[in-house]
Amino acid sequence: MLGGMQDWELRIPRLIDHAAREHGRQEIVTHWADGTETRTNWAGIHRDARKLSQALEDMGLKRGDRVATLAMNHSRHLVAWYGAIGMGGVIHTINPRLFDEQLVYIANHAEDKVLFYDKLFQPIVDRLKPQWTTIEHYICFDDGQFEELIGRYDGDYQWAEGPEREPCMLCYTSGTTGNPKGVLYEHRSSVIHAMAEIAPACFDLSPLSVALPIVPMFHAAAWGLPFAGAMAGIKFVYSQVNDPVVLCRLMNEHKVTHSAGVPTVWLSMFQHMDATGAKPEHLRLVTIGGSAAPRAMIERLMKMGIRVGHAWGMTETSPIGTMGSPPANWNELSFNEQVDLVAKQGRVPFGVELRVVDDEGEVQPRDGRSSGRLQIRGPWVIRRYFQDEKGDCAGEGNWFDTGDVAVIHPCGTMQITDRSKDVIKSGGEWISSVDLENAAVGCAGVAEAAAIGIRHPKWDERPLLLVVRKEGSEVSAEDVRAHLAAHVAKWWLPDEILFVDSLPHTATGKLLKTALREQYRDYQLATA
Amino acid sequence: MLGGMQDWELRIPRLIDHAAREHGRQEIVTHWADGTETRTNWAGIHRDARKLSQALEDMGLKRGDRVATLAMNHSRHLVAWYGAIGMGGVIHTINPRLFDEQLVYIANHAEDKVLFYDKLFQPIVDRLKPQWTTIEHYICFDDGQFEELIGRYDGDYQWAEGPEREPCMLCYTSGTTGNPKGVLYEHRSSVIHAMAEIAPACFDLSPLSVALPIVPMFHAAAWGLPFAGAMAGIKFVYSQVNDPVVLCRLMNEHKVTHSAGVPTVWLSMFQHMDATGAKPEHLRLVTIGGSAAPRAMIERLMKMGIRVGHAWGMTETSPIGTMGSPPANWNELSFNEQVDLVAKQGRVPFGVELRVVDDEGEVQPRDGRSSGRLQIRGPWVIRRYFQDEKGDCAGEGNWFDTGDVAVIHPCGTMQITDRSKDVIKSGGEWISSVDLENAAVGCAGVAEAAAIGIRHPKWDERPLLLVVRKEGSEVSAEDVRAHLAAHVAKWWLPDEILFVDSLPHTATGKLLKTALREQYRDYQLATA
Repeated sequence: MLGGMQDWELRIPRLIDHAAREHGRQEIVTHWADGTETRTNWAGIHRDARKLSQALEDMGLKRGDRVATLAMNHSRHLVAWYGAIGMGGVIHTINPRLFDEQLVYIANHAEDKVLFYDKLFQPIVDRLKPQWTTIEHYICFDDGQFEELIGRYDGDYQWAEGPEREPCMLCYTSGTTGNPKGVLYEHRSSVIHAMAEIAPACFDLSPLSVALPIVPMFHAAAWGLPFAGAMAGIKFVYSQVNDPVVLCRLMNEHKVTHSAGVPTVWLSMFQHMDATGAKPEHLRLVTIGGSAAPRAMIERLMKMGIRVGHAWGMTETSPIGTMGSPPANWNELSFNEQVDLVAKQGRVPFGVELRVVDDEGEVQPRDGRSSGRLQIRGPWVIRRYFQDEKGDCAGEGNWFDTGDVAVIHPCGTMQITDRSKDVIKSGGEWISSVDLENAAVGCAGVAEAAAIGIRHPKWDERPLLLVVRKEGSEVSAEDVRAHLAAHVAKWWLPDEILFVDSLPHTATGKLLKTALREQYRDYQLATA
Repeated sequence: MLGGMQDWELRIPRLIDHAAREHGRQEIVTHWADGTETRTNWAGIHRDARKLSQALEDMGLKRGDRVATLAMNHSRHLVAWYGAIGMGGVIHTINPRLFDEQLVYIANHAEDKVLFYDKLFQPIVDRLKPQWTTIEHYICFDDGQFEELIGRYDGDYQWAEGPEREPCMLCYTSGTTGNPKGVLYEHRSSVIHAMAEIAPACFDLSPLSVALPIVPMFHAAAWGLPFAGAMAGIKFVYSQVNDPVVLCRLMNEHKVTHSAGVPTVWLSMFQHMDATGAKPEHLRLVTIGGSAAPRAMIERLMKMGIRVGHAWGMTETSPIGTMGSPPANWNELSFNEQVDLVAKQGRVPFGVELRVVDDEGEVQPRDGRSSGRLQIRGPWVIRRYFQDEKGDCAGEGNWFDTGDVAVIHPCGTMQITDRSKDVIKSGGEWISSVDLENAAVGCAGVAEAAAIGIRHPKWDERPLLLVVRKEGSEVSAEDVRAHLAAHVAKWWLPDEILFVDSLPHTATGKLLKTALREQYRDYQLATA
């Protein structure tokens, strides 16, 4: 027996329809890299997105085709999201910070048909165009090119309809080992994720909210904000540049209440505040994710009267897995207890389930002590990577292994205890220690190498590379660095390279990273 | 092409699983009619619901079978909801205030198999048992009967699984004409509705919320609160009685932040406050629905620092159609402008769409002036009444005609002006009977008033106003007319004003206009 309610597919275009119809005059402000500022609103985004849908259809794009972007945060990027999805396509946001080999792999693997890019990334486009085999159209967001394109159309367009399980967006993980892997979000998963995000215990979004998301739109679906913002009818303030002087000014000028970003952005904001005495006056909720927020950062923001929400998630989880928010007993806690709680990774919204398992797969109690591999499942969690013949990546019961190590407290609060073993988290981005090591052993004279993350005040962690020379070799740190520079992104280059006689191994011959991390725990990088 | 995310049915039992797992210690307090108080929590509701599922299966209930309740608000009623739904059944909340004939019709039409009832309603059960043809089991919630029943089971139970479009709940409209009609809610529609409800611009629910819903659990799915509360992990305080002395004491004792109910409950609360000087100290959001809240009520609550959310909806809409919440420019409005806005019926959450059409079905502009029949569609709006052979009640494009007359303002705020059956059509223009009545009761000496349209040879219809005097009052027709003249357009003034001893009402306390129209069908206006 079925119920008596209406058929209503959970489709992304309904979000922009709703925003335009019910909150059409809420502004979308953009501060561009050239210092100019433009203003549109949800009605304008809606109109431009329909024009873009027409343009994409005219280019010959079909349902399911991928439309790539290589861009920072701005209103045209937002139009590209809704325009590409609106004509039945899949928006594919590419992280411009990846190194060339990955950028080539990703666009070719995704079979992107169109690339929209910021002028800022013209050098990447010029360099990689010959290797991108599927992209047929290149359109720059700047210099009037984008406006010229959509200006040819009238916006008289009906969104493509279809089942809610169709894909709407593709994001690749930067991948610690092997090639990057694509996560193919669905209309349904993204709409449910957005509904969870606007709740008070998550991003707390309403028409009273003015959000300046510092998290880039190419990073894990921009934490879902372009969708959640439309759903809640918020005002957006975007900046194409991440200069704290600009950000702080924008925050005060537009009475920004919500911001979201990795910890490093707040470090530079604090420096700006200390140097100038300026501060964002209207912020009410700062969401921090990407890597663990330092306690001092949380304290400082909280003392400014700002709620700090520590979020945890990954590209594979759309990305919200957990978000910190005041529990029922919040007002009975001392300030220090509140900070302790906020410094953890928060709780799941309805939809997400977490568990921690030991190496034998045994589910661990929620006692705040028993740590293990963190697993997750839910309506916006990955089942299978894009075009992955290996099949489902989620295991039995749909439990997806996050690669993180965590404990769960009795109150449901999750705490990452061991940032995943091999990964070095620098400024919210992941550096693969395995990739660094693989590149290093490709250098003549290097016998073995181990990369570990060393604590760094600004970037959280920076890589330290430990190298064992081949017998008789006199390879230098400069040699290794020069070799690495040709193989990895510049910001992946180790801050220091040390030569050692040997490295510790497990019984099966794997590098024993835990021992290395213990040994170099208090190591001071000269760059710190 | 389908996306890569997990299969995850939107099913109601996931709500109670989530509440028990993540917010298990949040209390569910009940003040019983006998003055005693019990406390359980979400973990306890979860355990008892599983026991009840076992009990219902043992009684021979099958998937889709209806389980009825005739009860006020309390924790056992909440257990009945989740227990009946959890075993694949359909919870059917019956409004005990209906007339016997309706109560008989509803239970038989629903083919209820089991009835759980409050001792308070034992007389109804004794009286109607012979006429209820399908109910096989009668269980009283009080006197230990319910506890005895579930006490026989261990709660080791796996919820019934199935498609999300399966039904989970049945509510009948009280229906002013003809037989009551059943609305069959689905797991999916109810979960999406709950997700919309917890948002800041709707009920704003989080673990910090302590809700004392005065709206009864048998009224339009209790406005969805039993589902939304579990989703957000709130604390519930229930009262089996609606005495303002008890309610006010409970609100202060448990620091209640949220309440919801029809306007009349606030009138009695105000009387209690005026008489004793007591007041609810912690209320933050009061949701008012069911009928229009008087402006003075809104002002008084707002002056207490409480956000007032005027909600509009109906059984057919799960029930949230609109909810008032502060718009982006809230802080720029004067207090009076804020009250003006709050007195309207609010805006749609994401999911719901509204439109206003004239008699020819032409969609009217959102100009705050063009009134017409209000139509609605969305994922939690009815498509077809339960076992209705007439087919879908939603028209083309799924637009469901609400029977209300409304205008939509440019900002998206909806304002009910009348019921379409009650609107008085004079010379092609519409006169709001509700506005006339509201203006009339503002006249000193008027206790109640009803305006109905009387056939008129020239104007089609002209208003007749029926007035009940306050005890001891000698207010005259001239007094009322003079008062009205200061508040409504001249052509709205009733052609005649008659004084009557009383006016007929429905079981839920609304004016029974059908009876009045019948009674005055052949009335001859002197102006005719």
